[in-house]
Amino acid sequence: MEKNDRLAERNRGFFKAKRLLVLNVVSSPGSGKTTFIRETATRLAGKLRVGVIVGDLATDNDAAQLRTAGIPVVQITTGTVCHLDAEMVSKAAVQLDLDQVDVLIIENVGNLVCPADYDLGEDLRVVLLSTTEGEDKPLKYPPMFHSAHVALVTKSDLAAAAGFNRQQALANLRRISHHAEIFELSAKTGEGMKAWLEFVVKRRANCSHG
Amino acid sequence: MEKNDRLAERNRGFFKAKRLLVLNVVSSPGSGKTTFIRETATRLAGKLRVGVIVGDLATDNDAAQLRTAGIPVVQITTGTVCHLDAEMVSKAAVQLDLDQVDVLIIENVGNLVCPADYDLGEDLRVVLLSTTEGEDKPLKYPPMFHSAHVALVTKSDLAAAAGFNRQQALANLRRISHHAEIFELSAKTGEGMKAWLEFVVKRRANCSHG
Repeated sequence: MEKNDRLAERNRGFFKAKRLLVLNVVSSPGSGKTTFIRETATRLAGKLRVGVIVGDLATDNDAAQLRTAGIPVVQITTGTVCHLDAEMVSKAAVQLDLDQVDVLIIENVGNLVCPADYDLGEDLRVVLLSTTEGEDKPLKYPPMFHSAHVALVTKSDLAAAAGFNRQQALANLRRISHHAEIFELSAKTGEGMKAWLEFVVKRRANCSHG
Repeated sequence: MEKNDRLAERNRGFFKAKRLLVLNVVSSPGSGKTTFIRETATRLAGKLRVGVIVGDLATDNDAAQLRTAGIPVVQITTGTVCHLDAEMVSKAAVQLDLDQVDVLIIENVGNLVCPADYDLGEDLRVVLLSTTEGEDKPLKYPPMFHSAHVALVTKSDLAAAAGFNRQQALANLRRISHHAEIFELSAKTGEGMKAWLEFVVKRRANCSHG
């Protein structure tokens, strides 16, 4: 673990030199990470160039979906490992043409437990909570939600159908994700994406002053 | 891991002597395990007596919900551990009055990776895939879906709103979950629960013949 922390700091230095804003996107399986990343990249086009590293136990379905949308992407297949680590990210990152990238988005393995312990050298850890998962997930997976810099309530278009209690979910997020900026959105309908994209543009501006 | 496998076999022998049907219920966070277990127990009342062991990193929300429904339940809080193991289950099981239980349901930690490696001594491993998670999860988490004896497509009431491709999901399940019986249901509306409950009654009848 100490080895991972050292490699993560090396990644952090490397990314800083490249003036990249780096996001580590974590969530349960099926919270909508890939659709969210695709829409973020597509809607930033013309302003910021996005590159993506995708982690999965198996398949390159997510990478294929992003590539089809014209987004530069590298797939990491972890086999049975339940998280990405700093070394995997280090090796994958250099397979992208990073001089043509402003924002590097890392899609972690779908898992609310293991990835919490692994610093990848990111600037921001972004945790997704979909409205179909229930309001209590921050309370039940505290290490992940506590360590997040950004918490996104996703699939807002399904909130009514799922009987999602928004006030309770936000209260739980504020209780556990102390440090996190919170956004509510639907990548599918575009609802709420504007505020998120403005936040990314602002954060990336800080990096470019390096 | 070898130690866990030995303890799991001991659990299996103990459960067999007690004529229990034991289910290990696994899924992503938020796939509907607790609601499904509550409805299974409630609808079996008068036919079979259900006891529950619940695993979570933190909180006893799920146990409290089940207890409110009159179901005997023991909570295991794992801290940062991403799965239950045979020893935890062994210690928790004896806190229930097992002579008053016919079906022991173990709700594992919400995680599609780590619990795959840990035999708990169960008769049936039951994996849930909710319609809001997407059709590709069996392909992306093969060890868990491959090892399942039963695969449940849950939240069928949200399938239309989520744009769930049922045929694709079933094809993916049949490809990875070779050994699994497949049921489609909504614990919330009761749709599809009848076939599942009949299956449980039949399987428990086998146990009671010792």
